[in-house]
Parts: sequence; structure tokens; C-alpha cells
Amino acid sequence: MMSASEIEAFLVEHFPAAVSFCKISAIRDDEIDCLVPFREEFLRPGGTLSGPTLMTLADTALYFLLLAKLGPVGLAVTTHLDINFLRKPAAGDVRATGRLLKLGKQLAVGEVHIKDAEGKLVAQASVTYSLPPR
Amino acid sequence: MMSASEIEAFLVEHFPAAVSFCKISAIRDDEIDCLVPFREEFLRPGGTLSGPTLMTLADTALYFLLLAKLGPVGLAVTTHLDINFLRKPAAGDVRATGRLLKLGKQLAVGEVHIKDAEGKLVAQASVTYSLPPR
Amino acid sequence: MMSASEIEAFLVEHFPAAVSFCKISAIRDDEIDCLVPFREEFLRPGGTLSGPTLMTLADTALYFLLLAKLGPVGLAVTTHLDINFLRKPAAGDVRATGRLLKLGKQLAVGEVHIKDAEGKLVAQASVTYSLPPR
Amino acid sequence: MMSASEIEAFLVEHFPAAVSFCKISAIRDDEIDCLVPFREEFLRPGGTLSGPTLMTLADTALYFLLLAKLGPVGLAVTTHLDINFLRKPAAGDVRATGRLLKLGKQLAVGEVHIKDAEGKLVAQASVTYSLPPR
Repeated sequence: MMSASEIEAFLVEHFPAAVSFCKISAIRDDEIDCLVPFREEFLRPGGTLSGPTLMTLADTALYFLLLAKLGPVGLAVTTHLDINFLRKPAAGDVRATGRLLKLGKQLAVGEVHIKDAEGKLVAQASVTYSLPPR
Repeated sequence: MMSASEIEAFLVEHFPAAVSFCKISAIRDDEIDCLVPFREEFLRPGGTLSGPTLMTLADTALYFLLLAKLGPVGLAVTTHLDINFLRKPAAGDVRATGRLLKLGKQLAVGEVHIKDAEGKLVAQASVTYSLPPR
Repeated sequence: MMSASEIEAFLVEHFPAAVSFCKISAIRDDEIDCLVPFREEFLRPGGTLSGPTLMTLADTALYFLLLAKLGPVGLAVTTHLDINFLRKPAAGDVRATGRLLKLGKQLAVGEVHIKDAEGKLVAQASVTYSLPPR
Repeated sequence: MMSASEIEAFLVEHFPAAVSFCKISAIRDDEIDCLVPFREEFLRPGGTLSGPTLMTLADTALYFLLLAKLGPVGLAVTTHLDINFLRKPAAGDVRATGRLLKLGKQLAVGEVHIKDAEGKLVAQASVTYSLPPR
């Protein structure tokens, strides 16, 4: 429905913080690749990326993927997010791949794998969105 | 082990962003009450508080409670967080009550209830922390 | 809508395995107390109750609570379950308290605390049900 | 460490219910394929496979994979399980693919995809095991 550049143009107008936080690298069918460029403010004590940074990325990657699949149809809202933090992420850019597992009338469910700048898998998440009537 | 004011003094030095985001209202045995003062930047399109704001609060409330129970013993790290978003939160302050369900040698597990400025329950979370050797 | 004895009569007809597995001890507003009488087949190696026994109890307790709130309105189906196993449960009866956190048009969300025969909290769960149109 | 037939021989002695419930189809590095042969008792009202059947499969698939990776080293115990039920499973055999995402000193985390007899993805789960000292 929407390409990466159409999504980013939509977000610049409606949700600038999201598009400034997370860039779309690629969209393929039911998958999306995203990149979060490093910022000092993402660090927590110990010099690793904070948990909230990774949670926000998981949530955002699937939101962008839903825009790609459904178009700018009004507001999808997150109803559930579950995340496993697997390893301490290195300070640096983070990449996520999100995949849609279900796109129903009322609910969409996806999973997300997050890798740090060294390519290590640092988190796995699943996210559920409640969809507006289409 | 640590009182609310001792925790805040520790955080001002080691994790200033956390203590600026979230204030401790009360600590009781295995429970903590926290308050997140409203900021415009927490809003998402539609005028409600963003999911990441609530996820960060759930994670932070239990981190503070672990400091209260264990003292400043080095770094506890989140290994898992699960959150259900129940209702759209009103724009305004948010309050959380965190409760420790297990404090083991290696893992601590807690649950968090989050209410918005109107007193509605807007999210329920569970969080697991991996603890450093004591 | 339905009392404990009405729910059990409904289940004897439509879902006999559920009512044989789990008994309703009490229903209060948005809460339910359930009891699972011990069976040898619930044990796993090490002599503790198996994880699937506790997961089934969490799912069942909230299903019974939805029947109590909504009546026999057709099939609610579980869309999500998250469970933390906190301690090894003793071999013996298990009790659960389920509490409804949200009863929306399409989704119901509840949380469950499970205690073993010694009264120890052994598991905490959250469960989401998708509701049929009412 | 252990092949599929060694695992099944170990389970016949120590956990016969598990090996009777779930068969190993293949083991590859950090992955396992399992099959649950259909039984009438897995059905719930509406003629679909019950949630507890799928939850037990998710838990069991990763337990078998840990045996394959670590050998019969004493008892790994589940500390957390999260499952999304995506579609109503057809009555029939069920297949699961489990993948290890982390194998640490104390914790192992894996994800599981479950397909029904028609090949539809019906559930996605993540499971955490606490490991005995090695």
C-alpha cells in the first residue's frame, strides 16, 4: 500500500518523533528492516543500550510495517508487547527485522528480532496491534 | 536497604535520566509507588500517552524497587518484559504500583499496574530482572 | 450473569474436561477463585507440578470468569497467554485467583495468581481473550 | 550432545508422558522439528485444538532441544512462557519448529512456531528455561 518514502512522508507530518527515531531500510511482503541510528541518550549505566530503546524499536518497526500493509488508515494501537533481552547490546546503531504473523480484521500480530552494531541478536519481541475498522 | 531519598541520590549520580523521568512516591515492603510527571514529548498521535512511555515506567518502577530491596549492588539487567495496554491513557501524569513476586538468587520477577491521570488502569506489566551475584 | 453452579452445569454439557480439571471456589465481581485437585498425572520429573498444568489453570480460570460475567454467549478464544513460573510447586492441590482487568467489546484481559498446596505463590499469568459479538 | 533417538530413550525412562505426547522429527544445530499426533482429548468446544495442547507443545519442543544441546544434565525448568494464538487450528496433527536464541550459563531462551495439519501458522511462542549448573 505505502512505500518506505510514502511512510516517512506521512510520519514527518503526523508522528515526527517516530521517523526521527527509526529509519526504514527495506520492506518485503510481510517483513520490514529498520535502523535506529545511535544517540548518546540511548545509553544506560554500564554503557549498553537501554531496554526502553529496544522496546520502542520493536513497537515502531511493526507500526511502520502495518502502515506499509494497510496504508494511512487511522490509528492502530498496541495492545500487547512481549520482549526478551538476550545479550547486552553494544553502544552503536541497532537494526530490527519485523515480520507479520497475522493480519486479521481486528488484530495484527508480529515478531521482531533486534541486532546490535556487532550483528549479535540482542532481543526478540512479539507485538499485537488492535486495528481500526477498514 | 535504601530509602526513596537514598535511591534518588544514587540515581542523580549514576542514572540521572531515570530519576528525572520517574519519581518515587512510596516504598512499602515489596511494593513501590511511582509517578511520571507529564511531558508533551510522551504524547503520540491521537493525544494519548505513548506505549514506550508506559513500558519505560514499568521497567523503571521495578528497577527502583530492586534498589530499595538490594541496595546499590551493581547492575541488575532486565531479561524480560511483558505489557498489556488496556485503555488509552489520558494526557497527564501517570502513576505505577510495582510489586515484587519473587526475589531469588539469580532472578527477580515483579508485576506493575499503571493508572492514568483519571485513575483508570491503563496497563499491566510483568518484568524479570537478572541479578548480579550478591 | 451465571453463578458457579450454573457455569459447572453448562460445562458438564459443553466442556466436561474443563470442569473435571478445575473447580470454582468463589466468584466476586471481577474475580474468581479456582481449585485444581491433585492428580498424579500432573507431576513432572523432580516431583513438582508440570508447567502445562499451571498454564491450563491460568487459561481456565479466566475462561470461567468470562462465563460468569458474560453468560454462555458462544465461544471466547484465547489470543495470548504469558506466564512466569516463580517457584517449584509442591505436589498437591493448586489454587488460582483470576481478576479481570479489562472487559472490552472485542478483548478481555485478566491476570492470575497461582498458589500451591503450601500457600506459596508459584506462578503469575496474564491472559487475553477475543470475545464474540454480543 | 544427544541424538533424537537418545533423547527418546532417555525420556521413555524419565518422562514417558512427554515422549508419548511429542515426537522429534529432526534436529539441526539450534533448531528442532516436533510432531504431536492428534488425539480426541486435545479438542475443545468448537472442534479446534485446545490452547493448552499448543502451550504444552511449545514448552516441550524447547525442552527436547535443550536435551539435544546439553545432554541429560539434570533438570532445566521453565521460568517463562509467552504464546500468541494466531488462528484456530484444524483438528489433526500439529507440528512445531523450535529455535534457540540464547544459551547462556543460567538462562536459555527460544522461540517456537506451531503449524496445524493444514500447514497454517497457528501459534508463536517464546520460552525461557533456567539451567542447572554445568
